[in-house]
Amino acid sequence: MPVPAAAWLDLDPGHPFGLAALPYCSFSTRQHAAFHRVGVRVGDRVLDLTTATERLLAGRAALFRDGTLDPFLAEGHGAWADVRAEITAWLSEERFREAVEDLLTPVADAELRLPFTVADYVDFYASREHVTNVGAIFRPDADPLPPSWLHQPAAYHGRAGSVVLSGTAIRRPCGLARDPGSAGDPAFGPTARLDFEAELGFVVGVETVLGEPVAVSRFAEHVFGVCLVNDWSARDLQAFESVPLGPFLGKSFGTTVSPWITPLAALARARVRPPSRDTALAPYLTESEDWGLDISVEVRINRQLVSRPPYATMHWSPAQLLAHLTANGAALRTGDLYASGTVSGPRPQERGSLLELSRNGTEPLRLADGSVRAWLADGDEVSITATAPGPDGTRISLGEARGQILPAIREAVH
Amino acid sequence: MPVPAAAWLDLDPGHPFGLAALPYCSFSTRQHAAFHRVGVRVGDRVLDLTTATERLLAGRAALFRDGTLDPFLAEGHGAWADVRAEITAWLSEERFREAVEDLLTPVADAELRLPFTVADYVDFYASREHVTNVGAIFRPDADPLPPSWLHQPAAYHGRAGSVVLSGTAIRRPCGLARDPGSAGDPAFGPTARLDFEAELGFVVGVETVLGEPVAVSRFAEHVFGVCLVNDWSARDLQAFESVPLGPFLGKSFGTTVSPWITPLAALARARVRPPSRDTALAPYLTESEDWGLDISVEVRINRQLVSRPPYATMHWSPAQLLAHLTANGAALRTGDLYASGTVSGPRPQERGSLLELSRNGTEPLRLADGSVRAWLADGDEVSITATAPGPDGTRISLGEARGQILPAIREAVH
Repeated sequence: MPVPAAAWLDLDPGHPFGLAALPYCSFSTRQHAAFHRVGVRVGDRVLDLTTATERLLAGRAALFRDGTLDPFLAEGHGAWADVRAEITAWLSEERFREAVEDLLTPVADAELRLPFTVADYVDFYASREHVTNVGAIFRPDADPLPPSWLHQPAAYHGRAGSVVLSGTAIRRPCGLARDPGSAGDPAFGPTARLDFEAELGFVVGVETVLGEPVAVSRFAEHVFGVCLVNDWSARDLQAFESVPLGPFLGKSFGTTVSPWITPLAALARARVRPPSRDTALAPYLTESEDWGLDISVEVRINRQLVSRPPYATMHWSPAQLLAHLTANGAALRTGDLYASGTVSGPRPQERGSLLELSRNGTEPLRLADGSVRAWLADGDEVSITATAPGPDGTRISLGEARGQILPAIREAVH
Repeated sequence: MPVPAAAWLDLDPGHPFGLAALPYCSFSTRQHAAFHRVGVRVGDRVLDLTTATERLLAGRAALFRDGTLDPFLAEGHGAWADVRAEITAWLSEERFREAVEDLLTPVADAELRLPFTVADYVDFYASREHVTNVGAIFRPDADPLPPSWLHQPAAYHGRAGSVVLSGTAIRRPCGLARDPGSAGDPAFGPTARLDFEAELGFVVGVETVLGEPVAVSRFAEHVFGVCLVNDWSARDLQAFESVPLGPFLGKSFGTTVSPWITPLAALARARVRPPSRDTALAPYLTESEDWGLDISVEVRINRQLVSRPPYATMHWSPAQLLAHLTANGAALRTGDLYASGTVSGPRPQERGSLLELSRNGTEPLRLADGSVRAWLADGDEVSITATAPGPDGTRISLGEARGQILPAIREAVH
């Protein structure tokens, strides 16, 4: 679908939130704090979709009445396409101007909310570079790739209740850990190795029934769109606890997501073939369509760029991740969120975690302001942003997942 | 609180669902299938608590109106104690007979439902015998106890969306696995090593705020009660995938819970000191009260007893599990479910999984009907039941978590 010019909106054609993007959110305004609405971002404003559909698309209005994306996500591909086409018309055709112009709120005045109810949260491990880097750090004497990894992606379930909206402060967690290289008793205290992980998250819309796998070809029937994820990690807690059940407290203290859910429909220009794979795959992981995504991620600490992870280098596509997640018959629910795992490219400045950027703390990063980071310090703000190809050489924005580190609470819990 | 005689109910004083038990459920009846009610089991009947509170306890009626336990769980300890005292009075004092007698439905006529909305599901690894048995099987050359396990319990997040009510059939899952001892290419197909795990589940009522740990002493303020859990496991899928992120598809295809949530108040007589521990614990795991539970579990395959795991032997108490789960500031939500992990005692006939009972399939079990099981066969029904000490030497029942294995779906998923 060609993107119409934003005639009456007077929007710069290269605006990263132009009509080619149109991501969704949930918001309220200060004047009407109790009225939770679904919004669509256009330029630097948010369209109140809850009210707009009451006026212009009454047949779909029930999908937006509760102010979350949940009913719309559940409704499926037909509704997703229809509503996007309607919004595009409203924002570009002069005849709709009067009906929607008063429903545009400056983003700065919108109180953004978690846009959907997170059902289950799964975190994958889909970047070959990330897995290789981490394996070389934690298992220096072994093959850095786990034995199953070229045959299937690895994953674990995370804590859905710890998923928070961009801007929520993250309390430095406490836990038991051993000093690196020590075999002595562990000590309880604030993590000394606090890290970020830059990831993409995929938001499931259409549910399935327990016992019925989802074919890799059906990805776009079930997944609505994409957000940005920071999978905050406490590396010392994680290292102490991970054998044999995987990460737990090292990850479950907070996971930040962007407020904007960018529909797959906005990412059609980003689709690329994933890097070639040298291992024959089981049929359930064999794709007939390309669902690699040429999305450029950027990570900043205190507004200073520290990494540019290229999502196009991911070994496993989001369609393969979904097929794997359900291969055993696990059901999907509306609001399931699965993340890609850390996005890391082959070059040093493309690594998506401090663990990799500082080589497990041994080569601290020097930031532009002269300060040095092996791990995150209290007060640090981490921002993850991303862009994807838009029309005519422009880029669309996927927004930002941002969070600042609060100091640990040290008082006794008794 | 002494348990009154069930005067007008004419209930056998040794009935396993007498007034000392009173577990909660959600149910409807065939005649009024759309009317979902909260129920309380007494004897072989279910009291319609939704209607009973409308009649007799209007100030609490809103807690039961939606037919799930969710609002009641969230309300906290005061409401839990009040409502239990009221129900006890209604069922024992003649003056309430007329108001509640018509609200008792035979259990056989009740359509039981999942009693609460599962928020996050966590599975622990709290039995020293289970951890030791599994370690010896999977890591024969290493210390069977993981390096952190005597300092803290191990755990992973499971799939909340795969939690199903007792009686729901479980489809044999497919996945990639290698033949034991093989280093060749893995093959995709139905699991050949399907197993059960007999566990107790703890149901969280009162939520907390992200960033604030729950002290071990506050267990009973946050946890409402206990259910039975079968953590179905596909051992070949699990073995292939578990390094380094822990179990995923090997566990996420189904987790069965009992319909009855037994409140902690009914388990006061079951409280015991956990087995002595030889490792100094961090303050956050140091208990001032004993929350070991003398609960006797039984596992049956096709109605034939195969194991009697004793919960009293568990190394980590449920209060310690909760303190650990939140030590990093992870928030609790109403409906969070955390399970103990497999309950296994020191004796061979006390092991809570086939993995242990058949020594990883090398010593198949012979059942009373003459059949042999290394792993579960299609059509097998697994039942987990449990009892706890009641008054005067009686036992109260925690109900049953039951499920039957359906054959795998083998057709292509494309």
